[in-house]
Amino acid sequence: MHIKQIEEIVVIKVGIVGATGYTGVELLRLLALRDDVCLQVVTSRELDGTPVADVFPNLRGYIDIAFSNPDDEALAACDVVFYATPHTVAMKSAASLMAKGTRIIDLSADFRLKDRALWEQWYKEKHESPELIELAVYGLPEVNRDAIRQAQLVAVPGCYPTAVQLGFLPLLEAGLVDTSRLIADAKSGVSGAGRKAAVGSLLCEASESLNAYGVAGHRHLPEISQGLEKAAGQAVNLTFIPHLTPMIRGIHATLYATPLGDVSAQQLQSLYEARYADELFVDVMPPGSQPATRNVKGSNRCQMAVHYLPASNTIVVLSVIDNLVKGASGQAVQNMNIMFGLPENEGLQTLSLLL
Amino acid sequence: MHIKQIEEIVVIKVGIVGATGYTGVELLRLLALRDDVCLQVVTSRELDGTPVADVFPNLRGYIDIAFSNPDDEALAACDVVFYATPHTVAMKSAASLMAKGTRIIDLSADFRLKDRALWEQWYKEKHESPELIELAVYGLPEVNRDAIRQAQLVAVPGCYPTAVQLGFLPLLEAGLVDTSRLIADAKSGVSGAGRKAAVGSLLCEASESLNAYGVAGHRHLPEISQGLEKAAGQAVNLTFIPHLTPMIRGIHATLYATPLGDVSAQQLQSLYEARYADELFVDVMPPGSQPATRNVKGSNRCQMAVHYLPASNTIVVLSVIDNLVKGASGQAVQNMNIMFGLPENEGLQTLSLLL
Amino acid sequence: MHIKQIEEIVVIKVGIVGATGYTGVELLRLLALRDDVCLQVVTSRELDGTPVADVFPNLRGYIDIAFSNPDDEALAACDVVFYATPHTVAMKSAASLMAKGTRIIDLSADFRLKDRALWEQWYKEKHESPELIELAVYGLPEVNRDAIRQAQLVAVPGCYPTAVQLGFLPLLEAGLVDTSRLIADAKSGVSGAGRKAAVGSLLCEASESLNAYGVAGHRHLPEISQGLEKAAGQAVNLTFIPHLTPMIRGIHATLYATPLGDVSAQQLQSLYEARYADELFVDVMPPGSQPATRNVKGSNRCQMAVHYLPASNTIVVLSVIDNLVKGASGQAVQNMNIMFGLPENEGLQTLSLLL
Amino acid sequence: MHIKQIEEIVVIKVGIVGATGYTGVELLRLLALRDDVCLQVVTSRELDGTPVADVFPNLRGYIDIAFSNPDDEALAACDVVFYATPHTVAMKSAASLMAKGTRIIDLSADFRLKDRALWEQWYKEKHESPELIELAVYGLPEVNRDAIRQAQLVAVPGCYPTAVQLGFLPLLEAGLVDTSRLIADAKSGVSGAGRKAAVGSLLCEASESLNAYGVAGHRHLPEISQGLEKAAGQAVNLTFIPHLTPMIRGIHATLYATPLGDVSAQQLQSLYEARYADELFVDVMPPGSQPATRNVKGSNRCQMAVHYLPASNTIVVLSVIDNLVKGASGQAVQNMNIMFGLPENEGLQTLSLLL
Repeated sequence: MHIKQIEEIVVIKVGIVGATGYTGVELLRLLALRDDVCLQVVTSRELDGTPVADVFPNLRGYIDIAFSNPDDEALAACDVVFYATPHTVAMKSAASLMAKGTRIIDLSADFRLKDRALWEQWYKEKHESPELIELAVYGLPEVNRDAIRQAQLVAVPGCYPTAVQLGFLPLLEAGLVDTSRLIADAKSGVSGAGRKAAVGSLLCEASESLNAYGVAGHRHLPEISQGLEKAAGQAVNLTFIPHLTPMIRGIHATLYATPLGDVSAQQLQSLYEARYADELFVDVMPPGSQPATRNVKGSNRCQMAVHYLPASNTIVVLSVIDNLVKGASGQAVQNMNIMFGLPENEGLQTLSLLL
Repeated sequence: MHIKQIEEIVVIKVGIVGATGYTGVELLRLLALRDDVCLQVVTSRELDGTPVADVFPNLRGYIDIAFSNPDDEALAACDVVFYATPHTVAMKSAASLMAKGTRIIDLSADFRLKDRALWEQWYKEKHESPELIELAVYGLPEVNRDAIRQAQLVAVPGCYPTAVQLGFLPLLEAGLVDTSRLIADAKSGVSGAGRKAAVGSLLCEASESLNAYGVAGHRHLPEISQGLEKAAGQAVNLTFIPHLTPMIRGIHATLYATPLGDVSAQQLQSLYEARYADELFVDVMPPGSQPATRNVKGSNRCQMAVHYLPASNTIVVLSVIDNLVKGASGQAVQNMNIMFGLPENEGLQTLSLLL
Repeated sequence: MHIKQIEEIVVIKVGIVGATGYTGVELLRLLALRDDVCLQVVTSRELDGTPVADVFPNLRGYIDIAFSNPDDEALAACDVVFYATPHTVAMKSAASLMAKGTRIIDLSADFRLKDRALWEQWYKEKHESPELIELAVYGLPEVNRDAIRQAQLVAVPGCYPTAVQLGFLPLLEAGLVDTSRLIADAKSGVSGAGRKAAVGSLLCEASESLNAYGVAGHRHLPEISQGLEKAAGQAVNLTFIPHLTPMIRGIHATLYATPLGDVSAQQLQSLYEARYADELFVDVMPPGSQPATRNVKGSNRCQMAVHYLPASNTIVVLSVIDNLVKGASGQAVQNMNIMFGLPENEGLQTLSLLL
Repeated sequence: MHIKQIEEIVVIKVGIVGATGYTGVELLRLLALRDDVCLQVVTSRELDGTPVADVFPNLRGYIDIAFSNPDDEALAACDVVFYATPHTVAMKSAASLMAKGTRIIDLSADFRLKDRALWEQWYKEKHESPELIELAVYGLPEVNRDAIRQAQLVAVPGCYPTAVQLGFLPLLEAGLVDTSRLIADAKSGVSGAGRKAAVGSLLCEASESLNAYGVAGHRHLPEISQGLEKAAGQAVNLTFIPHLTPMIRGIHATLYATPLGDVSAQQLQSLYEARYADELFVDVMPPGSQPATRNVKGSNRCQMAVHYLPASNTIVVLSVIDNLVKGASGQAVQNMNIMFGLPENEGLQTLSLLL
């Protein structure tokens, strides 16, 4: 397998498989205006032949390409192909593109879990490219930057896993907390459910309401645990409860941990600031902060704050991201930048809309 | 002090102090159509003389009374006076009404904490009616029904305290869980902040966003702890993190506890069903349920579900209420019904709007 | 055809065909607590055998019936059957129920248009019960109360037609305006699109956005025109532009008309007040009012205000309803009350939730 | 008066007066990342000394300046000063800055109306800089581009006036419609009310509701009329009804006009396309389109569609903008670009967030 050399590339030829979902559209938004990127292939089986801007009028005048049927040859001619598809699509077709030297950035869950049996248990499918699992690099730059640089296949982390891992990492890497009882109470906007017609995602059902879901087990749990265990160097026991909340974008993870010994708010603050000092997309806020998802809406940033509650001897970490950006398409672009030797924030230096 | 005898009462003469806030309006909604209630005095300093229905056009044709300045005599002529005011108002004026035999139902925090020093610490005021603190009955009918029946002064629980206590009570009363590490991750709609002009409650600030607040300490924490400790018969250590969520009404409390010994989902289900079997306003849902706040919107009901997660040996309770109904005005009316010997669900048998 | 005599009825046996949509659920909400109504049959093909309260947890404890397959015999045993179905269902099956004496209240469009050809043109179907078209009474009580009283088949008006007709009627009946150029700019909440999975109704698509639709022609246009022409006694020319707005419930109709001669605000106010003086569910607000949909949320009331703008010599009428109540299920119940000789507001005297 | 020569400017020194409101924050978002702009002074009386990013955490790491008290000298040292203030502020202080050669871009209403008496009538204040009224250029680039290029003082159009004028202009310039009865039914998001604490803008009041306001007369009416009359070359008679709608951003103007002679959809389409062919920020959509505000959220674009309804012989134009961008701060930046000889879309080529 020969990966195309980045030295030869001036403009990155990009393909997107499954560009009609929310992560696909978000990729289009983040890539459309870049001079160093050429959107070459944008696939959709249902919309073959339809101009992309007919479906997404916000792109009128910025993108003049039409959707096309997935075609191996056209995709293989790209320098990098993003999979913005439901799981099992990338697993079935990435290998043949890789054989021709194309890089793959998979936003789906196909290559996130290193334990194939665990993947098959949670996704209730036989994995069809087990040989790629080991090859795949888990695309959390704050942990795997060097590996991403060399990777031909990147598995972009899920939205919850991004917010929860970034929030817990400093504590676990420093060995400061009891790993036998971690709690992640996470709240997500509705776009996390994707752009598929489902009664539960209708405005009339999902607005003006809030509920937990997946209490008995959510597919992001093993992915989070895998990352936390790697950071801790030992087994962790995580309770993960996701909630559906009445907004479009945003994840707010509220993390609870018990310190193993004495800790102080100041010590925790320093730990977090040091851990993320060089990270462009992780912003450790000042002591006492309570980050709001609106402040990262549309941006690739994770904002977080660490609190210590002496009365109950509990560490509380608040971590917010935009699930479609740092939790999906923005992180995918961040990975692309790294893979192609570009500044990591190229095309991602966008300010949140705030309101 | 002589309380008016309920035998003599055919139509309950009601006064509401501070009827322009959300809990006040909600009281009006719940009382306006009742044949056995007469709205006699509805006070507001700012709106003295203005017909109530001019301010709240949904009441046009149903309420023809006007707001009036708070007047001791007029209020004392009522059988019961509701305080739908910020804290410190009831504390300053309830005593004189009580002296004339009027019953008081205080929706504010003035008489919720039995420990006066604790109250003064959290509310940063000197308590002006310490002699009433002991007299006051904490108006959580599921715990204090008998005392409420005899009470002249009821302190209606806060919204978070209602959802959290009802959710934890069965576990604590049964002594099933480690009380040294309870976690309540609670999510509230914006109406919890009241009807006061504040930038943080503007639609442009609060919609499409979510954030934790009061992490360092929220006034509802000591109130919840007081109730949980009474139920447990011992000290409890609670971490309570409230969140502001982009909806009008609703509280969703996600509660985490560690069992002391072996438990099973079935055992917990039976425990909860038995505890609330006779409660009209607590609905223990079937195993595996994940209650949504929309299902209790506008209703006085608390819906809850109890889960046991064997992998992390954690009990998770999900408890939802409408913060303005079971979390405030509905519960106040429920207390009134009990105090006046009426069916507890009189005027409260309203179905949620659902959407 | 023999209609069951209402004198013999103590408790009205009710059937609902298609009770899983929003108008169906709203019927359940409005009927579930009534002593004089017995919900006998609630049909759904997909959910045959499932308890209604399993699907709509807000009804737990209030309704213990299960959905069943539509069954002619069971439905014919009812005193009245509501069709809360898409168009063409009632047209196909109402006749056989009517033959057995059952009353029909159809919330769909099947019997709204008196002109069969017009119906077939707009609904692009052949009408299968043309003989019932003439028999059907258009269920706008403010116009057809007497006919409704005698009717066996009532066609409940659409949501837009209710708001627009009630708003224009006084002007047209009085012959005050130029009927050759009426404009109705109407804004609807998303629930008007029903409880079907459609991408356009997803929270992520419909919230935080607003757009016109059906500009080239909306099915409610001929229905509105039919009513306006009857009121005017002549042809009318209406421009009707509906808009989708980011809220669950509510219709706001903004109506524009040019007076034929001199008019004054005071004269218009008197006209409107007189026209609706005896109407329980039409509230003409004071001069200068600007009604908000929130004030009628959950209620069967139409609130309206009439303005005269001298600078542009234009009459502007603002008319608001809850599309699911006065615009559908509430009006259906109002019709039922009239048909069965009950007080017209039985079960409908509910206050708006306001917030 | 000597205006600073743009030839000498490499980096534009910018001051913003009143940067804590929504238009101010939006200016910060649009200017913060530009290499050719230096944010020099950002004023706020209340927040003097507070770092901007402390108040708007989305700007953390992008803006390190602090708010300062308005200071004439510091402002005069800027090449351009934006007023993002309530009306009357610019009128009182712009003259002294202009005397020192600074350019002024006023987002308030102070210099929009050419008729001073009219201004004083609508704004109920005496105008304190009448001499600047004539000097001011109305900053609608699609009409006044050449004048803007030379201007020292630009009055940025209001949000409604931008959407309504752009929508009507082609019809009026071509003399195609009856100017004696134009109707603009406009719908705005809540951010149009600004970032001031007001009960009516609370999430609990403004979400899940919709109402007209300013029916008797809105301050944007004379501004719109002034522009339409200039385009038509004659008096126009406009009925303008604004509505408050439950979303943060966006204006949707639905415009109604009667053609003077025969027109066709195709002719209108060509007229609109030709009128705006060279405009970067006006997008005439294909025949039959119904633009949604979401497609311009966060972007400086106006999307519009023109319809002809033969049945009622009415032209309907649908025009959408983001009220904070093309309706305020984006248009202000567009004006700045023109004034400083930059490409008109510099810093404004941002794609809408879509969702």
